Amino acid sequence: MATVHARSTAGPGKPFTPTMIERRDPGPHDVVIDIAYCGVCHSDIHSARGDWDFTVFPLVPGHEITGTVSAVGSQVTKFAVGDRAGVGCLVDSCRSCDSCAAGEEQHCDAIAWTYSGVGPDGRTTDGGYSEKIVVDENYTLHISPGLDLAAAAPLLCAGVTLYSPLRRWGAGPGKRVAILGLGGLGHLGVKLAHAMGAEVTVLTRSQAKRADSRRLGADHVVVTDPAATAALAGTFDLAISTRAAGLDLNADLNLLRRGGVLVNLGMPNETLSFSPGALNGARRIVAGSMIGGIAETQETLDFCATHDISADVELITAEQIDDAYDRAIAGDIRYRFVIDASTLRP
Amino acid sequence: MATVHARSTAGPGKPFTPTMIERRDPGPHDVVIDIAYCGVCHSDIHSARGDWDFTVFPLVPGHEITGTVSAVGSQVTKFAVGDRAGVGCLVDSCRSCDSCAAGEEQHCDAIAWTYSGVGPDGRTTDGGYSEKIVVDENYTLHISPGLDLAAAAPLLCAGVTLYSPLRRWGAGPGKRVAILGLGGLGHLGVKLAHAMGAEVTVLTRSQAKRADSRRLGADHVVVTDPAATAALAGTFDLAISTRAAGLDLNADLNLLRRGGVLVNLGMPNETLSFSPGALNGARRIVAGSMIGGIAETQETLDFCATHDISADVELITAEQIDDAYDRAIAGDIRYRFVIDASTLRP
Repeated sequence: MATVHARSTAGPGKPFTPTMIERRDPGPHDVVIDIAYCGVCHSDIHSARGDWDFTVFPLVPGHEITGTVSAVGSQVTKFAVGDRAGVGCLVDSCRSCDSCAAGEEQHCDAIAWTYSGVGPDGRTTDGGYSEKIVVDENYTLHISPGLDLAAAAPLLCAGVTLYSPLRRWGAGPGKRVAILGLGGLGHLGVKLAHAMGAEVTVLTRSQAKRADSRRLGADHVVVTDPAATAALAGTFDLAISTRAAGLDLNADLNLLRRGGVLVNLGMPNETLSFSPGALNGARRIVAGSMIGGIAETQETLDFCATHDISADVELITAEQIDDAYDRAIAGDIRYRFVIDASTLRP
Repeated sequence: MATVHARSTAGPGKPFTPTMIERRDPGPHDVVIDIAYCGVCHSDIHSARGDWDFTVFPLVPGHEITGTVSAVGSQVTKFAVGDRAGVGCLVDSCRSCDSCAAGEEQHCDAIAWTYSGVGPDGRTTDGGYSEKIVVDENYTLHISPGLDLAAAAPLLCAGVTLYSPLRRWGAGPGKRVAILGLGGLGHLGVKLAHAMGAEVTVLTRSQAKRADSRRLGADHVVVTDPAATAALAGTFDLAISTRAAGLDLNADLNLLRRGGVLVNLGMPNETLSFSPGALNGARRIVAGSMIGGIAETQETLDFCATHDISADVELITAEQIDDAYDRAIAGDIRYRFVIDASTLRP
């Protein structure tokens, strides 16, 4: 058993403070990862601030983890000491259900979430705001040498969250893709959809993000107001909404051409509504999506390495976590905070 | 110009009365159909009772039309006098847009609806509660000799409305399909999904429809209450809701397995709501659908002829239209009213 430095919050909305947590001794199939960076995901904020009722406190969040393998179990074959490695949203699953068999472990009913989950040892899992993590090799990702470990961290959650629906719904040459909202998710959506060959339009409420949209790879940028949004009616094959609040599903659906698909990634604690005509009138589709499985997460990382894609990140220290949360909620972020794990020791 | 007997309503909720309407002389590509039967669709009721604001009064509804060709224009090649013919929800479209090119004329912005639309001659269209109709051959359907003209009439709208989403979303062997609600649409959904080889479950609120469900081809019947519905969580690949009221999208979505599809055919004048988690948690899909194009309507008719499928109908006279509407609204119908056009003359 190793005891390592971490940051935790004692309850909903309480500040992060230094703590020590235990990491299990590596079992035969485990790898020990010395964490270099951990991204700050909006899910971390929802969890830490008590928006979701399944959070277990004290909470060590973090599921966008990159680092280097420092030890391996006796039967590990996929990793060696010194390998670059990553961990995303899940650290285990049942391995036998239909979802696991399909490589969609994120939909397994017995999933072990990276934090506030139940690990293989029966203990509540602690996430990546810590110096080390011990994970089964089958739930550990390879990080290509071509990727920067800090900028790659958000690919483990935000990246695959965009990659999966873009791939599933055919983003590629000849397809018009709208990215609604330009934040941590949206900016990766622009990069990925552009790399897949789609014609990408950013819809943003912020005039200030016009230049960024172009730089990230957007073919078109529309600063939205009701009139500008209405003028885009029937335009897109695929619209991915990364907005977390103020959702207007009818307006979003109206953007789609016949048979077009809206993927709403935001998980607000509110009900979403639409009129039947907005869906049936052009046989539009609203499709759910939630991160991706292990194989698809690896595919995301490899695609990003090939296409030189990573997140635009702002490195923060462990002391800055609370402030970063406030800034993320205020939208003051371009486009993802990443914690430098070397600052975790108080 | 021919003047023919018809039934019309003068305004929202007004009773049907005998009237005479004009049908144009057939142009080079027109066929004249002597109408034998016309189904009563719930859309007729919505239109006649003022639920939809695009209805034009006086209104002659009816878009489930079967009969026999009595004359053809000089350049007609697809039909000959004496042929059995049908007309569905549309009688023309622009023929040049993306939707028309894709054979999805029902999504053409310049569609000419069979009634309350604008016909090729610029006049408001009158539907099938009439003795004759004149329609371009390209918007006229062939009715196989194997189909009964009365029982086939509902296939022109209700039939293709079910056939299209069942085909699009892969109903077939190894797929579990739920039909929610057993009425005019639902009973055809059961027959079609069964014929396609799917495992079909009917969810009905009526204990009295249990035996009917089996007779129509259902493998399973569940008389729903909240507990029974919850017990089916995660079961279906495809659920088609034919319910017009009392919709609970979260409960319906919960029926679906990972990646499952909910098609909601009802068009209530109400907003539909769901929680993001019900969709994203198992990457479920809500898909719109609206009747079908001309080619798909023909495909429906041909599929039904091959598989000996038609609607369960109750023949009514023209005098019974108002009563039939009341009975349809009350759910007192198994499963489709069809007007015997020979009774239209007062």
